[in-house]
Amino acid sequence: MTDPDRPERLSPDEARARFRAGLRVPTSGWCAGWTQANLLAVPRDLAYDVLLFAQRNPGPCPVLDVTEPGAVDSPRFSGDLRTDLPAYRVYEHGELIAEVDDVVERWREDMVAFLIGCSFTFEDALVAAGVPVRHIEQGSNVPMYRTDVACRPAGSLSGPLVVSMRPVPASQVATAVRVTSRYPAVHGAPVHVGSPADLGIEDLDDPDFGDPVEVRPGEVPVFWACGVTPQAAVMQSRPALAIGHAPGHMAITDIRESEHIVP
Amino acid sequence: MTDPDRPERLSPDEARARFRAGLRVPTSGWCAGWTQANLLAVPRDLAYDVLLFAQRNPGPCPVLDVTEPGAVDSPRFSGDLRTDLPAYRVYEHGELIAEVDDVVERWREDMVAFLIGCSFTFEDALVAAGVPVRHIEQGSNVPMYRTDVACRPAGSLSGPLVVSMRPVPASQVATAVRVTSRYPAVHGAPVHVGSPADLGIEDLDDPDFGDPVEVRPGEVPVFWACGVTPQAAVMQSRPALAIGHAPGHMAITDIRESEHIVP
Repeated sequence: MTDPDRPERLSPDEARARFRAGLRVPTSGWCAGWTQANLLAVPRDLAYDVLLFAQRNPGPCPVLDVTEPGAVDSPRFSGDLRTDLPAYRVYEHGELIAEVDDVVERWREDMVAFLIGCSFTFEDALVAAGVPVRHIEQGSNVPMYRTDVACRPAGSLSGPLVVSMRPVPASQVATAVRVTSRYPAVHGAPVHVGSPADLGIEDLDDPDFGDPVEVRPGEVPVFWACGVTPQAAVMQSRPALAIGHAPGHMAITDIRESEHIVP
Repeated sequence: MTDPDRPERLSPDEARARFRAGLRVPTSGWCAGWTQANLLAVPRDLAYDVLLFAQRNPGPCPVLDVTEPGAVDSPRFSGDLRTDLPAYRVYEHGELIAEVDDVVERWREDMVAFLIGCSFTFEDALVAAGVPVRHIEQGSNVPMYRTDVACRPAGSLSGPLVVSMRPVPASQVATAVRVTSRYPAVHGAPVHVGSPADLGIEDLDDPDFGDPVEVRPGEVPVFWACGVTPQAAVMQSRPALAIGHAPGHMAITDIRESEHIVP
């Protein structure tokens, strides 16, 4: 973590101000108690396909909020969606054409932004339950992988399920499942425990997004659905324009984590 | 219940065949173990507003499935959505113009159908927990009420929250909350316990939809968000055409109740 002070103690406003000022770090561990979100912004004419894709794939795409066309904030995110994330990715016709600190110049008048739940949100609960979170220990980004599991298509959008991975000691896998099951709005229970090959993941040390983490003897790789999935659909489906967060560099919302706990 | 045999034992296919043949009864208590759903079908150009309205009001509008434009079935409903519900309501410009047994003639080529969770789904669990369900005991429809609580608008759609009411003995209210909290996809926990006036409900014996039920001494009226809410939004927002189920006369889906239980 490159930030000098204690990022877990910052409020969403304080964190967003740092990112707006140019700080570029993964947000895992930031703003304890507040919900982090994936961003996907598209022109209005693609918004129905994105919302339907999310409805049909609620595991990887739990929608927290949707903005009005052209708006840069929402009731759940009081900052500026064009500047207040640490980093953004811009896609044209499915190609990643830029990774930038802000997207003020690229935000069209009819952009609709989707805020999608992020598993960073339940990491506090894992730590509180005594489950180690390796990428936080390492101060790195969580490893994310494209799988060979296809999402259910919607209109022009189709693509593979993307998952995040956390190594969990075998004796604590059940605890990790139980704890995260209570957070369906931020991906909830794991989609897969162990056996990466079954997801088409050949090498855990070579993630498609984020950084590799150490998997120690006696630890099992546990996979959760990941909100980068909509970006993978954009890369496969090639819409004219889409803007996402840089993986691991999330939108920090004004939604308390406790809102998501069920039952 | 007017059906001669034991409707709780029927499969979704068997129940849909009876409704297709003309049987017109409320579906509370039918097809134990299977999920019942509210129907709202609209032309494609209104589909985004409906889906966004549902996303912004997940309590009353938990979306179970969305059909392709013009389709009359879905992966979660293998029957014919135009004929296999007991009764339908047709709205033009917000006016209820017909309540009919099928909508074959009225189904436009570009209709998109939304299947929205129904609280009938968790009534089995209430009964299993020893909580009486009065409208099943009475063989009548559940009472539903328009409240003075406004839903969060979406595009052209706005309207009031509609709730269903079940009288629960005071000693079992906590059990009813705990049991139904586990079913967020079919409205989940109550939105309100007691004090109907706080919801703008003046007379429990005069529901806006369904039938009144007896509230006995020592019982508390408990209110759950209701999937008739989107129809109330249609009535207020006056789109050119919308088709819904007749309140209490639900779509019986191929989704097992157990799919919805969290965590």
